[in-house]
Amino acid sequence: MVGGGIGAFVGKVHRMGARMIGGIEVAAGCFNRDRAQNDEIGGRLGVAPARRYGSFEAMVAGELALPPGERVDFISICTPNYLHFEEASLALKAGFHVMGEKPMTMSVGEALELERLVKKTGRVFGLMHTYTGYPMVKLARDLVGRGEIGKVEKVVVEYPQGSFRKMDFTVPLDKRNKWKMDPRKSGESCCMGDIGVHAANMLEYVTGLEIREVLSDLHGFTPGIGRLDDDGDCLLRLSKGARAVLVASKIATGEENGFRFHVYGSKKGIYWHQENPNVLHVAAQRAPEQIWKRGNPYVADVSPAAARASNVPAGHPEGYTEGFANIYRNFADTIRAREEGRKPTDLELDFPGAREGVRGMRFISAVVKSARGGNTWVKL
Amino acid sequence: MVGGGIGAFVGKVHRMGARMIGGIEVAAGCFNRDRAQNDEIGGRLGVAPARRYGSFEAMVAGELALPPGERVDFISICTPNYLHFEEASLALKAGFHVMGEKPMTMSVGEALELERLVKKTGRVFGLMHTYTGYPMVKLARDLVGRGEIGKVEKVVVEYPQGSFRKMDFTVPLDKRNKWKMDPRKSGESCCMGDIGVHAANMLEYVTGLEIREVLSDLHGFTPGIGRLDDDGDCLLRLSKGARAVLVASKIATGEENGFRFHVYGSKKGIYWHQENPNVLHVAAQRAPEQIWKRGNPYVADVSPAAARASNVPAGHPEGYTEGFANIYRNFADTIRAREEGRKPTDLELDFPGAREGVRGMRFISAVVKSARGGNTWVKL
Amino acid sequence: MVGGGIGAFVGKVHRMGARMIGGIEVAAGCFNRDRAQNDEIGGRLGVAPARRYGSFEAMVAGELALPPGERVDFISICTPNYLHFEEASLALKAGFHVMGEKPMTMSVGEALELERLVKKTGRVFGLMHTYTGYPMVKLARDLVGRGEIGKVEKVVVEYPQGSFRKMDFTVPLDKRNKWKMDPRKSGESCCMGDIGVHAANMLEYVTGLEIREVLSDLHGFTPGIGRLDDDGDCLLRLSKGARAVLVASKIATGEENGFRFHVYGSKKGIYWHQENPNVLHVAAQRAPEQIWKRGNPYVADVSPAAARASNVPAGHPEGYTEGFANIYRNFADTIRAREEGRKPTDLELDFPGAREGVRGMRFISAVVKSARGGNTWVKL
Amino acid sequence: MVGGGIGAFVGKVHRMGARMIGGIEVAAGCFNRDRAQNDEIGGRLGVAPARRYGSFEAMVAGELALPPGERVDFISICTPNYLHFEEASLALKAGFHVMGEKPMTMSVGEALELERLVKKTGRVFGLMHTYTGYPMVKLARDLVGRGEIGKVEKVVVEYPQGSFRKMDFTVPLDKRNKWKMDPRKSGESCCMGDIGVHAANMLEYVTGLEIREVLSDLHGFTPGIGRLDDDGDCLLRLSKGARAVLVASKIATGEENGFRFHVYGSKKGIYWHQENPNVLHVAAQRAPEQIWKRGNPYVADVSPAAARASNVPAGHPEGYTEGFANIYRNFADTIRAREEGRKPTDLELDFPGAREGVRGMRFISAVVKSARGGNTWVKL
Repeated sequence: MVGGGIGAFVGKVHRMGARMIGGIEVAAGCFNRDRAQNDEIGGRLGVAPARRYGSFEAMVAGELALPPGERVDFISICTPNYLHFEEASLALKAGFHVMGEKPMTMSVGEALELERLVKKTGRVFGLMHTYTGYPMVKLARDLVGRGEIGKVEKVVVEYPQGSFRKMDFTVPLDKRNKWKMDPRKSGESCCMGDIGVHAANMLEYVTGLEIREVLSDLHGFTPGIGRLDDDGDCLLRLSKGARAVLVASKIATGEENGFRFHVYGSKKGIYWHQENPNVLHVAAQRAPEQIWKRGNPYVADVSPAAARASNVPAGHPEGYTEGFANIYRNFADTIRAREEGRKPTDLELDFPGAREGVRGMRFISAVVKSARGGNTWVKL
Repeated sequence: MVGGGIGAFVGKVHRMGARMIGGIEVAAGCFNRDRAQNDEIGGRLGVAPARRYGSFEAMVAGELALPPGERVDFISICTPNYLHFEEASLALKAGFHVMGEKPMTMSVGEALELERLVKKTGRVFGLMHTYTGYPMVKLARDLVGRGEIGKVEKVVVEYPQGSFRKMDFTVPLDKRNKWKMDPRKSGESCCMGDIGVHAANMLEYVTGLEIREVLSDLHGFTPGIGRLDDDGDCLLRLSKGARAVLVASKIATGEENGFRFHVYGSKKGIYWHQENPNVLHVAAQRAPEQIWKRGNPYVADVSPAAARASNVPAGHPEGYTEGFANIYRNFADTIRAREEGRKPTDLELDFPGAREGVRGMRFISAVVKSARGGNTWVKL
Repeated sequence: MVGGGIGAFVGKVHRMGARMIGGIEVAAGCFNRDRAQNDEIGGRLGVAPARRYGSFEAMVAGELALPPGERVDFISICTPNYLHFEEASLALKAGFHVMGEKPMTMSVGEALELERLVKKTGRVFGLMHTYTGYPMVKLARDLVGRGEIGKVEKVVVEYPQGSFRKMDFTVPLDKRNKWKMDPRKSGESCCMGDIGVHAANMLEYVTGLEIREVLSDLHGFTPGIGRLDDDGDCLLRLSKGARAVLVASKIATGEENGFRFHVYGSKKGIYWHQENPNVLHVAAQRAPEQIWKRGNPYVADVSPAAARASNVPAGHPEGYTEGFANIYRNFADTIRAREEGRKPTDLELDFPGAREGVRGMRFISAVVKSARGGNTWVKL
Repeated sequence: MVGGGIGAFVGKVHRMGARMIGGIEVAAGCFNRDRAQNDEIGGRLGVAPARRYGSFEAMVAGELALPPGERVDFISICTPNYLHFEEASLALKAGFHVMGEKPMTMSVGEALELERLVKKTGRVFGLMHTYTGYPMVKLARDLVGRGEIGKVEKVVVEYPQGSFRKMDFTVPLDKRNKWKMDPRKSGESCCMGDIGVHAANMLEYVTGLEIREVLSDLHGFTPGIGRLDDDGDCLLRLSKGARAVLVASKIATGEENGFRFHVYGSKKGIYWHQENPNVLHVAAQRAPEQIWKRGNPYVADVSPAAARASNVPAGHPEGYTEGFANIYRNFADTIRAREEGRKPTDLELDFPGAREGVRGMRFISAVVKSARGGNTWVKL
């Protein structure tokens, strides 16, 4: 693992999620640039001192120097955005499978290059769009896919956070997140690149439709945000004539992580909210609204993917960490399948990868182009 | 009252709301064009046979022919949109106060003319933007007005309905609503003219800001909708640099009357949902979310308008009809004040009127212009 | 109307509910003992000065002195409990129909006597158990009655309020409620007599079962409550082998009017909460939970009574006042049917009356006996 | 680990919870009685073949035969109730720390003996009352402990499940649960012994009060339940004059795992629901209701225990598995402290153990005695 050191957020959840399902251990890492901190966290995680590396390059080299059976199987990349491309490329070229963080790279060009590299090396590449790891999201996708809600016509996806309202750069954790406001490290969009891209990925995952064109308006309210965005609105034209609105914000005061979507089809509408992830609302016009609950046989009947992503019995809530666990499970099973020489099943292949990474970068790029170009329609 | 006959929706609620508060009776009306139906409903309402009129013109003439003390005090107009201007004008010119339905007219020009007429005649003109009659909406406005949520920066207002999904023109009630899809009767917008205008009114009422520019995209999914819209999305630029998204839909399958808004200020965010109208959510980033509940002293302390609009004790839910009642109360009290020769108080004047009608028509007009003109920014 | 003067709670809602549906006017009344207040409220309500009576006896006599067509049709009794029996008896004997408040009387004996008087006089007697006026409660009853939830085996009905936590006898409204703590005016139970009796009525109404035996424990936490209860718990044995728990409290801090019930049948469970009264939750073990929403055709299909009690379209919330309106509608329609010499329909007869009043008094009496007798089972 | 084999429920969650926090691995186990299944699951878990034991006795003996540094540190007991006492005793005597499942034993006598053995051996004993591992439960306890809600006067704790409604003994998982209906394996109570005991533990944990007396009524509705209970109601007298109601059910159709409690104090009331565990409702009579959300600084300020039990940032939901993880964390830290020769901190000691086990057995015993003895008060 690279990144995810002391004070970091997402790396820790990567580890919890991966460990929860069993069969995955952190065997090596360069977590913090600071040597003492790196050692401390490596120690806590039970990583052998020799495998607590001082740099990413040293880690790749060090692991390659071990006999094949003793090397790490894959590398999880939990560093700031500007390092994703370089590190993922190096790892893939060295023969490691890679689990990356979103956004995949800093540009569409890099993303396409990385996608080509994944194909060329034949390595397994995962991208941690965590939220599609939730079982009820998989159920939503399968309900849509089976035609249960009819033709999808309108989608509203919202990702409001108030996180930047409480930012305090004198506090270590917040200071550590400051790179998100620096376009050299974060990329050309802050809010859309960080969370808008989750919303776009979710929309395409659940509906099976593609975002074709974007008209966006981006705003920066936070002092110091500069030319970057901390809030934005997108009108979307989807394939098959569907329309969507996508709203993402880091200045939505009072919201914690209020990621939610409504998909309105010709027969039914569905609704899911990340903060209450164990249920999916399904409503028609002429029948009672239904609340589908994770872990039940009636969910499994419709969505084997949701059943597979369900870790504890119905009524016992699952959460965010299970989202990571579910993506790691499919990622790891796909690696195992490849290593066993068999074709992974569709259920195993159900995790975001290079294709989703490229889609995400196209989305970010089009959003920024539209906003800077006077709020006009831009093709993805 | 004109309109609101057998099979009509809103006229009945006008009557229930008006009656609930006491002091208002339906004394005359032309409810249905069909004479027998008109007589039947007039009878049910206790309207004297002589005052069950066959046409609006007949009603105005008939009432004028009565001695001043026996005439109706005001006329409620519950007819389709294309009749609003003509009927309101006639009533005002005849010296009656008027309670109208939204949208006020068919065009901005008519709206401005009606506004001038209201001023000229000195009559009281109310416009039934019901939803601002809810007490927790008034609390929201007062919390914003007192600076409790800080500077308003982002607003998301959504008005999704699935009503057109269950439209069945072989059913009487639905048939009666068919005029909403006819631009000659409904105006140049269907969805935005019917419910989008409520959302715009709500936004301006709660935030105290003005919508300055609109960029919109309108869609028509329902068979037979023609060039009209049954769904639409607007990006809005508000006064004082605030931004907003407004989404309205009549094809949001599974939604009933899901009117809701989030206002995000620099200090706090607030949230209200019409289907659960007795509470207002108020959330800051560094404190527990608060649920303010109608009818409590702590609400009255902040919002005398909310207290005044509260009809039963806390814990005992109020609903839609009370929204009408609250608007009628203020409208009627303003009429009384005028008749008593005193200046109405701010609390009494807290009901939508000609100004809001003009704002609404400007909004509808700008939305349609933007959508038809290639989704560009249009000033209101 | 008797009672319901300035500062009173329930009388005002009686009036709003009755007026809302049309056809009912307050034509006479003795609202306050204080003559000036009585005149003031009578004036506000449009009651002719001659019919603003100084006492209940004067009102009955005064109305009787009017020609039959000019008298009030019925009398609503909104006075403290200790007056119910005497006033209702007098009114019935004088030939008026009566709408009473719960509890019906001060004792089982009085209740039985009043029931006999109702039969003897042939007058219509209604008892304002408001909460069974809610349409979704009627739906619940009809779902149970049609066997949709299977055999009812367990019921949990809770009625928590925090009202006594904020009692302040220096405040006029609270002072006015002080009689509830006085056993001479309130009866032998405070909490159970005031709200527990609603819970018991609801349980019998929804399940169609009878409470056969009670084992109760009553508590008094409020200073000054004396030997009366402000909180209590009951174990119940119902007919057909079902069991129930009934909890009522006036010291449930933070609760407003949290009346709710769960009915668990052999096939499904249902849940309703008074503070969100427009929905009914229906859940089976092997299917998604359903949220039935007021005003929809699928509700009407199952429950004509719910459809009849629905005043505005789906999605537009109704509340507490409509509960009163719905009971007044059926009460008034039953009176009309009697006056027209026809048998009222089952839908018209769907309002609580003397039978429910006697059941309520038996419940209160048994609860008190059980609690005072060492928490043993007492038959109703 | 003993138990928790293929098809078992709770053993798997023990493992996920323990692994999630890091530092705990399943190194040995006898999971299934069936040798092939035992081998299969042992293999999946990475347990060395030599340490996949055929019996509990063999496991204890086998581990003891290993050098001290290579033995397991503690043993988790996930077998049916009737084995708890014997296995825990054996493990403790052999010098292992023990994590047990509730109920601790089959009788109060065994519980007391086990408690003595824990003291005598000086080993660390944990009892998996999972639900007190939730951070918002810890916040509730700390709010009560700090006097924020005033004097606790009334508690309502409910644990409704519909699990027995969908029991199908032809299905493997259900068949495996059949022992719960066998008093020789389950103990003298089924529903109260399985989930009622969680409710009792929660009540004492959150309020800091003791259950002093119980009056209970137990019911058996499920065919085949025999003399055992699948549903029951308890009236409780708590220390300091507080009163409570405890309802537990396995025939509450439509409920999944609806464990919830209300604590009403003289100042505020609090509410928590297991199916939405990341929030705690706190309501006073004269201020807006508050929703406290996990992971926020304002929670940490009041409850360091809640902060410690919070694994991912606010807004990202945690669930049931984290409950296990949190109890394992404190249990493991206490073991480490003991092994390092230092006194564990109060935060580390915050996990249920022998004391809670004895309390639970006293509760079960008193409940059964009361129900069988004619629903009389029984002291714990």
